[in-house]
Amino acid sequence: MSYFSNVKQVTYEGPNSTNPFSFKYYNPDELINGEKMEELFRFAVSYWHTFTGEGTDPFGQSTMVRPYNKFSGMDLAKARVEASFEFFEKMNVPYFCFHDSDIAPESNSLRETFQNVDEIVGIIKENLKTSKTKLLWNTANMFSHPRWLNGAATSPNAEVFAYAAAKVKKGLEIGKELGAQNYVFWGGREGYETLLNTDMKLELDNLARFFHMAVDYAKEIGFDGQFLIEPKPKEPTKHQYDFDVATGLSFLQNYGLKDYFKFNIEANHATLAGHTFEHELRVARIHGMLGSVDANQGDTLLGWDTDEFPTDLYSTTLAMYEILKNDGLGRGGLNFDAKVRRGSFDPEDLFLAHIAGMDSFAVGAKVAQRLIDDKVFDHFIEDRYSSYKEGIGLDIMEGKTNFHQLEQYALGIDKIENKSGRQENLKAILNKYLIDAYRG
Amino acid sequence: MSYFSNVKQVTYEGPNSTNPFSFKYYNPDELINGEKMEELFRFAVSYWHTFTGEGTDPFGQSTMVRPYNKFSGMDLAKARVEASFEFFEKMNVPYFCFHDSDIAPESNSLRETFQNVDEIVGIIKENLKTSKTKLLWNTANMFSHPRWLNGAATSPNAEVFAYAAAKVKKGLEIGKELGAQNYVFWGGREGYETLLNTDMKLELDNLARFFHMAVDYAKEIGFDGQFLIEPKPKEPTKHQYDFDVATGLSFLQNYGLKDYFKFNIEANHATLAGHTFEHELRVARIHGMLGSVDANQGDTLLGWDTDEFPTDLYSTTLAMYEILKNDGLGRGGLNFDAKVRRGSFDPEDLFLAHIAGMDSFAVGAKVAQRLIDDKVFDHFIEDRYSSYKEGIGLDIMEGKTNFHQLEQYALGIDKIENKSGRQENLKAILNKYLIDAYRG
Amino acid sequence: MSYFSNVKQVTYEGPNSTNPFSFKYYNPDELINGEKMEELFRFAVSYWHTFTGEGTDPFGQSTMVRPYNKFSGMDLAKARVEASFEFFEKMNVPYFCFHDSDIAPESNSLRETFQNVDEIVGIIKENLKTSKTKLLWNTANMFSHPRWLNGAATSPNAEVFAYAAAKVKKGLEIGKELGAQNYVFWGGREGYETLLNTDMKLELDNLARFFHMAVDYAKEIGFDGQFLIEPKPKEPTKHQYDFDVATGLSFLQNYGLKDYFKFNIEANHATLAGHTFEHELRVARIHGMLGSVDANQGDTLLGWDTDEFPTDLYSTTLAMYEILKNDGLGRGGLNFDAKVRRGSFDPEDLFLAHIAGMDSFAVGAKVAQRLIDDKVFDHFIEDRYSSYKEGIGLDIMEGKTNFHQLEQYALGIDKIENKSGRQENLKAILNKYLIDAYRG
Amino acid sequence: MSYFSNVKQVTYEGPNSTNPFSFKYYNPDELINGEKMEELFRFAVSYWHTFTGEGTDPFGQSTMVRPYNKFSGMDLAKARVEASFEFFEKMNVPYFCFHDSDIAPESNSLRETFQNVDEIVGIIKENLKTSKTKLLWNTANMFSHPRWLNGAATSPNAEVFAYAAAKVKKGLEIGKELGAQNYVFWGGREGYETLLNTDMKLELDNLARFFHMAVDYAKEIGFDGQFLIEPKPKEPTKHQYDFDVATGLSFLQNYGLKDYFKFNIEANHATLAGHTFEHELRVARIHGMLGSVDANQGDTLLGWDTDEFPTDLYSTTLAMYEILKNDGLGRGGLNFDAKVRRGSFDPEDLFLAHIAGMDSFAVGAKVAQRLIDDKVFDHFIEDRYSSYKEGIGLDIMEGKTNFHQLEQYALGIDKIENKSGRQENLKAILNKYLIDAYRG
Repeated sequence: MSYFSNVKQVTYEGPNSTNPFSFKYYNPDELINGEKMEELFRFAVSYWHTFTGEGTDPFGQSTMVRPYNKFSGMDLAKARVEASFEFFEKMNVPYFCFHDSDIAPESNSLRETFQNVDEIVGIIKENLKTSKTKLLWNTANMFSHPRWLNGAATSPNAEVFAYAAAKVKKGLEIGKELGAQNYVFWGGREGYETLLNTDMKLELDNLARFFHMAVDYAKEIGFDGQFLIEPKPKEPTKHQYDFDVATGLSFLQNYGLKDYFKFNIEANHATLAGHTFEHELRVARIHGMLGSVDANQGDTLLGWDTDEFPTDLYSTTLAMYEILKNDGLGRGGLNFDAKVRRGSFDPEDLFLAHIAGMDSFAVGAKVAQRLIDDKVFDHFIEDRYSSYKEGIGLDIMEGKTNFHQLEQYALGIDKIENKSGRQENLKAILNKYLIDAYRG
Repeated sequence: MSYFSNVKQVTYEGPNSTNPFSFKYYNPDELINGEKMEELFRFAVSYWHTFTGEGTDPFGQSTMVRPYNKFSGMDLAKARVEASFEFFEKMNVPYFCFHDSDIAPESNSLRETFQNVDEIVGIIKENLKTSKTKLLWNTANMFSHPRWLNGAATSPNAEVFAYAAAKVKKGLEIGKELGAQNYVFWGGREGYETLLNTDMKLELDNLARFFHMAVDYAKEIGFDGQFLIEPKPKEPTKHQYDFDVATGLSFLQNYGLKDYFKFNIEANHATLAGHTFEHELRVARIHGMLGSVDANQGDTLLGWDTDEFPTDLYSTTLAMYEILKNDGLGRGGLNFDAKVRRGSFDPEDLFLAHIAGMDSFAVGAKVAQRLIDDKVFDHFIEDRYSSYKEGIGLDIMEGKTNFHQLEQYALGIDKIENKSGRQENLKAILNKYLIDAYRG
Repeated sequence: MSYFSNVKQVTYEGPNSTNPFSFKYYNPDELINGEKMEELFRFAVSYWHTFTGEGTDPFGQSTMVRPYNKFSGMDLAKARVEASFEFFEKMNVPYFCFHDSDIAPESNSLRETFQNVDEIVGIIKENLKTSKTKLLWNTANMFSHPRWLNGAATSPNAEVFAYAAAKVKKGLEIGKELGAQNYVFWGGREGYETLLNTDMKLELDNLARFFHMAVDYAKEIGFDGQFLIEPKPKEPTKHQYDFDVATGLSFLQNYGLKDYFKFNIEANHATLAGHTFEHELRVARIHGMLGSVDANQGDTLLGWDTDEFPTDLYSTTLAMYEILKNDGLGRGGLNFDAKVRRGSFDPEDLFLAHIAGMDSFAVGAKVAQRLIDDKVFDHFIEDRYSSYKEGIGLDIMEGKTNFHQLEQYALGIDKIENKSGRQENLKAILNKYLIDAYRG
Repeated sequence: MSYFSNVKQVTYEGPNSTNPFSFKYYNPDELINGEKMEELFRFAVSYWHTFTGEGTDPFGQSTMVRPYNKFSGMDLAKARVEASFEFFEKMNVPYFCFHDSDIAPESNSLRETFQNVDEIVGIIKENLKTSKTKLLWNTANMFSHPRWLNGAATSPNAEVFAYAAAKVKKGLEIGKELGAQNYVFWGGREGYETLLNTDMKLELDNLARFFHMAVDYAKEIGFDGQFLIEPKPKEPTKHQYDFDVATGLSFLQNYGLKDYFKFNIEANHATLAGHTFEHELRVARIHGMLGSVDANQGDTLLGWDTDEFPTDLYSTTLAMYEILKNDGLGRGGLNFDAKVRRGSFDPEDLFLAHIAGMDSFAVGAKVAQRLIDDKVFDHFIEDRYSSYKEGIGLDIMEGKTNFHQLEQYALGIDKIENKSGRQENLKAILNKYLIDAYRG
C-alpha cells in the first residue's frame, strides 16, 4: 500500500517549475566542485521528526495527520518502516537516521524492548537491500523514559548507567548490522537541573568511563562507524555538559577521548549556545573535528529548540562554505533534524518541508562554491593577514622571536596602520553572489 | 590632601548600626572556618572602575563627580594614586588591581607611555611600603586604543602583535616590581566581528604563541604571579575566543598551556555566556583551575556587561560555597570588577557600593560555611549517589566493568527506582539558612 | 481514602521547626498591616500543575508518581477531586483554580465534554460546601486540543471561534455555579507563527468581538467574577497578542474593553517578555489594572516558561511591595501557577513545593511591609522628586506652564545639579531588611 | 574643498557592475508599483552615525578616519556640514536627519548652545537651497549630557524638565525653519534604572504633559511636521517607557495623545524588544500609526543595539512588504540609523555601507512588490480565513451573533477540520521570489 499517495516521485524540475512537489535547485547529479550534489550533501531524513513525531508541544496534543496512525504497537512500527522507505524513495534521499525508540516501541522489559527493536531492524535491513537509501547514523534514546530523568551515563543511579550501557551496546550492534556510517551521542539529560544536588565531577567522570567502554565495545565487534558527540547547551536539561563544540572538545581532551570522536553540529543548538551555525562548524573544522551536521534552523527570538526546516539562505551558504572548505563531511551527512511546524500537519507538508530544506542547501552550496572559486573572502583574508608573511610577522609565525625582540620592534614603530575590515561591503558582496547564483 | 573628606574610616559596626558608612556583616577579623574574613575574601578594588571610570555609556558622557578631575595628564594620574590609597585605607581593603592605562596616560610614543607608567609605578611602590593594601593583579589594556580594534595577539596586523608583546612584557615587569600575586589576560578584542574576514585558526595559533612567550618571559625574570585567563563570551567583540571556562580550558589543552594558567571568573561574564556564576566556578574548581574572581553581578534581562556591585545574596552564597569548597582562592582574591551606576555619581557612592559588595559576600560566606558545616547539600548528594558506593556502581567507578557485564546487569533489573531531586525543598532550605544566618 | 497519607496536616511551626512539612514563615493568622496573612495572600493551588500535571517535557514522558493514576477517564477525574480537597485541607490553602479540561476528560463530542465537566463540577460543588477552600478562578483550556492549533478566538477557522464561544460560555456558567472570584483569559495560541499566513487585524478584531460577547454573557447570567487577561509574550505561539501588560492595555483601549478587565500577572511571563515581575505589577497597579497574580518564577538563563515554585525572596519581596501598595489584590489572589520539577516526582514534593512558595511569600510580605512602614523607599523617592512640589516643578504638575515659560526658566538656570540615585545603597538596605526580618 | 575625494558620484550601474562604488539594484528612477524608487524609499542619512560618530564603544576609543577631524569646535561643525552635503550629493540621497547636538557643539550655557545651533542651522539652510537633499526629521539630543542621566521629561528634577522643554521648543523651531517632514521623540533615558527609587506614575504623567506642550507649541508656530515616537525597550536605560509600538500606543491612548503621533520604527529596537522588524511595522500599520522607519539591523545573538547597516534581504523584503501595503510612508522615510562597524573606519566605508543598505532595500522592494502583485500571500490568507466570508463566520464578523447562537452552532459541529498553515512551503516560495527577482 502507499502511505503518501497524494505525492508522486519528487524530481529536479529547475527554477521555472511551478510544481510545488519538485526540486527547483537541488539537482542530485549536478556537480559542485566536481562532486555530485547527492554525494556532497548526503542528505538524511530524521525518522523521529518525520515518522514518529506527532506535533505535540508543551501546551498541546498531537496534530499530525499520518495515515499509519490507524495502527498501534508493533503494527504501527512496521507501518512506519514501510511508509519511511516510500518517503525516502519519493524524496530520493540517500540516508536516514533513527533512535532505537523511534523505530520500535519500548517495553517495561528491556529484553522485550530489544526483541521489538531486533524485529524492526530485521525489516529495515530487508528494505535496505533494495533501497538506495542507507543509514547515516543511529543512536539510543536515553532521555524520554522517566528512568532517564537525571541523565543516563551521568545519572546518580548506577542502575540507570547500566541500563544505558545495555542500550548503547545494542545500538552499536544495530549500527554494525545496518551498516551505519556513524553513531551519535546526544546527551539530552547528561547535565544538571541544579548544582544544589549535583556532583558534577562524578558525573563527568562517569560520562567519560561510559564513552571509553563504548569505544572498546565498538572495536570489539568491529563497528567502524564514526562516533559523534552532538553538543547542545540546554533543553530539556537546565545545563547540558556538551554545551558547544569547545566544551565538548575540552571534555574529550580531559579524558583522553579526542581521537575517537568528532562532532555532529546542529544549527539550532549553536544558536541556543549563543553562536552562529557557521561558528560551530568553523571551530570543529579547524580542529579536525567536523563529523556531521544536523541541518535545521532555530528562531533566535525564541529561547527553545524550534528545529525548523532550514530555509535561510545565508545560513545554508555559510554552512556549505565551511563544509566545502572541509572537503565535505566524509562519513557524515546533512541530517534534517527538523520538524514540520505543528500547523503543517498534512503528510504533504513533509515533502514540501524537505524540498524547502534541500533546495535551500543546494542554493547555499552553489553560492558558497562560487565564493570559494572566485576566492572572494580568501583574497580579502590573505591580504588582511599579509603582514604575517614576512619580517617580524613571519618570525612570529615560525616561532623565531620572543618578547625582547618584539619589544624592540614595537619601540621602533612610528604609527600602526590597520586596514578596514570592510564588513558592510563583504555582506553586500555576499548578497550579490546570492542574487547572481541563478541569474545566468 | 584628602579626596574623600566626607567619609571617615569604614569599620565593622554590626547589623544594628544605622551608619551607612559602616560594615554591618563584613568583619575582617571574624573567622569563617578558622580563617579571618579578610584573608578568606582577599577583597580588591578595581582601579579602572573606581578611580579612572567616568560613568560614560554608549549614549552618554561622563557623570562622575571626582575631586581629582580638576587635574589632567600626569597630574591627574598622580592625584588618582593619592586618592586610591586614601580609599584603600578608609575601606580597609587588602588588595587592588589595575591595567597599565588606568594608572598612567598613554602617549602616541610607546617609549613615552612606558615612562609614564614607570613614573606612576614608582609612586605606587612608594605607597605600598606604608600601606597594608597590596597588588592582587595587574594587566595591560589592549582593547581601548584604536590600534587594538581587531585584537592584540590575534590581530591580523603583525605590528599590533609586537606592540602587545611589548605591553605585556612591561606588565610582567611591573607585576614583579610591585609584587603582584597574579597577572590577568582578558582578551576583550581577541575574537572576531565576522567570519567573512577572519582566519580563526591563525588567530588562535598566534594567541597560543603569545601566551608561550609570556610564560617564558615570566620565568626569565622570575615573576612568580599566577597567570589567569578571564573568559568572556562577547562584548565588545561579537565573539570572543575565551567564551567561558570550558572554552578556555579547551584552548589551553590544545596548545600545551594548561599547566601555566588558571581562570579569573567574573559573574557577569558567566551570565552573558548563559551560565550561572556558580557554574563557572564549579567547572574551574573541579578541574583545579579556579584562580581568582571578578566579583560583580549582571542583569540577566539585559544583554550587556552591566558590571554591577554584587548584592544578590544567593549569588554571593553560592559563589562562596564553591570558593570554600576550593579551600579558598590561593593567590587569587575577590576583585570588585564593578562600577557604581551612572546615576550614583557622588564620591560617597564609591564607599556605599563597596560596603554593599563586601557585606554581601560576608553574608554569603557565613551562609555557605553553615551549609558546609551542617553538610546540608553534602549529605543529600552523598545519599543521592550512594548506588556508586557498592555493587555494580562501585565496579563502574573503579573501572572494573564493561558493556557485556552492564548489559547482563540491566537485563536483570526489574524496575528502576529513581530518587526525587527535591529541588524545591533544597531551595527552601537555602532560604532558611539565609534568614537564620543572623537570627542568633 | 487518603491520597497523601505520608503527609499530615501542614501547620505553622515557626522558623525553628525542623519538620520539613511545616510552615516556618507563613502563619495564616499573623497580621501584616492589620490583615491576616491568609486574607492578604489568598493563596491558590493550580489544579493543572498539581493534580493533572504529569511531568512531561518536550523530550520526556511523565514522571510523576500520583496515587490516583491507577484510575482513568472519569474515575481518574473523580479521584483527582478527592485528592485535591485532601491536599487543600492539609495545606490549608483558601483557594484553587482550574481549566475545564483539568477537571474532566474532553470527549470528541462537545456535548459529552460538557456532561463530563458538569458531573465533576457537581462533585466539586459538593466538596466546596464543607471545605474552607474556594474557587479563585476558572478558565477554559483552548490550547491543548489540535483544533486550537491556530488559536481560539483568533483562529482563521470560524468553527473554532464558535467552539471557543461555547467553551467560555460554559466556563462562565461554571464560574457562577461555583462562586468563582474571577474568570481568566490566557490566550496561549491567540497569536501567530508567521506573518506570511496571518491577517493580524482580522484576528485582533475577532478577539475583541469575542471578549465583548463574553462580557455580555456574564452580565446576562449575573456572573460577577472579575475578568482577567493573562499576558504572555510567546510559547507555545511564536508571538502572542497579549505580550505584556502594556500590550494588553493597548488592546483593551483600542476596543473599548478597558472597564471590563484587569490583568492576571505571572512572574515567568514577565521575564519572558524582558521585564521584571515587579515591573509588570507596577504597570498594572498604576493603571488600576492589577487583578490577580500567578505566583511562580522563571529561569532567566532559559528561554521558556519553567513555571518554578517561587523561592526567590527578592522577587517575593518586590512583588508583595507592589501588592501591599495596591491595598491587596481585591478579588484576586496568589495562584501557584508552578509545577514541581520533573525530578521532584514524589507526592510529598507537592507539599514541600507549596510550603516553599508560601513561606517565601510570607517572608517577602514581612520584608515589604517593614520597608513600607519605615517609608524606606518612600522617603527617598519623596526627596528625589521634591522639585515638583514647588515653583516651576509644581507649575508643571499642575499644568500651569508651557514651552515659552519653561524655556525662559531654562535659560536662567546656571548649572543643573542632579541627585545621586544611590542604587547600590538601596540594594544594601533591601538586603538588611531581608536579613533583619526574623532577627528579632 | 572635497572631504571624500576618493569617491566619485555614486550611480546606478546595474547588477553586472564590478565597481564597488555603484548601485547594483537601487535605481532611483525605476518604478515600483508606479512609483519611483527614490520617492518610495525616501532614504535618509543619519548625521550622527555618519558625520559625528567616532567609532567608540564601551571598551574602546574612536577609530574613524574622517578628514574634517583636523578641526574642532564650531569649525568642525561647519566642516561637517560641508562634508555632509558633499556626501548627500555623491550618494544621491534625498533626505537626512539630525539631533541638535550632532550639528553644533553644546556649551554649558544654553543660550550659547542655541547660538551655535542657530549658526549651523543657517548654514544648513543655505545648503538646502541648492541641494536636492531635504530634512526628513530633526530631534533634540536629551540623553548624552550628564544632566539627562535620569531622563529628560521624566527626570525627577524639574529643572531638567524645563531644560528639555527649551530644547524641544528650539527643535520645533528648527524643524519649521528647515522644512522638516517630521519631528522625532526617542526617549533614550525616559525610563528607569531601578524601581526602588522611581515614581513611575509621576514620570509617565510628566512625559504626557511634555508631549501635550510640544503639540501645542507646534500648532502655535505652525510647524506641520508629523510627530513620531521611536520605541526602544532598553539601552541605555534598564527599562524604557516606549518599550515597543504596543506600549507606545497604550501610553498615547492613556493620555489622549494618539491623534498627534505616529511611530518611527527601528529594526534593531524591534529585535531588542523580542519582536521581528516586520511585526512592529505590522502592528503600527494596522493601527494607522506607521510613520517612519529607522533602517538598520541588529545581531540577535548580541544583546545591545548594534545598529548595523541593513543587508539582510529577508528583513528588507518583509519590511518593504509592510511599507508597500501601507501605501508607502507618507511624510516618513527610510533613515539609515546605522553605523559602519568600528573596524570599517575609512571614509570610503561610509559609501560602501550606504550602498549596501540602499541596494538591499531595492532588492527587498522588488521582491515584495512581486509577492504583492502575484498575491502570493494574499491568496493564501484569503483562502485560509475564507470561513469568515459566509455563514456563522460572516455573522461573527458582522457582530450578528452571541454566545447562545455560537454554542448551538458548536454543538452541531461533527469534526473541525483545520487547514495546514504551510509555513515551510511559504518560506520556500519567499526564497524563490528572492532568487527570481533578478533572474530575468
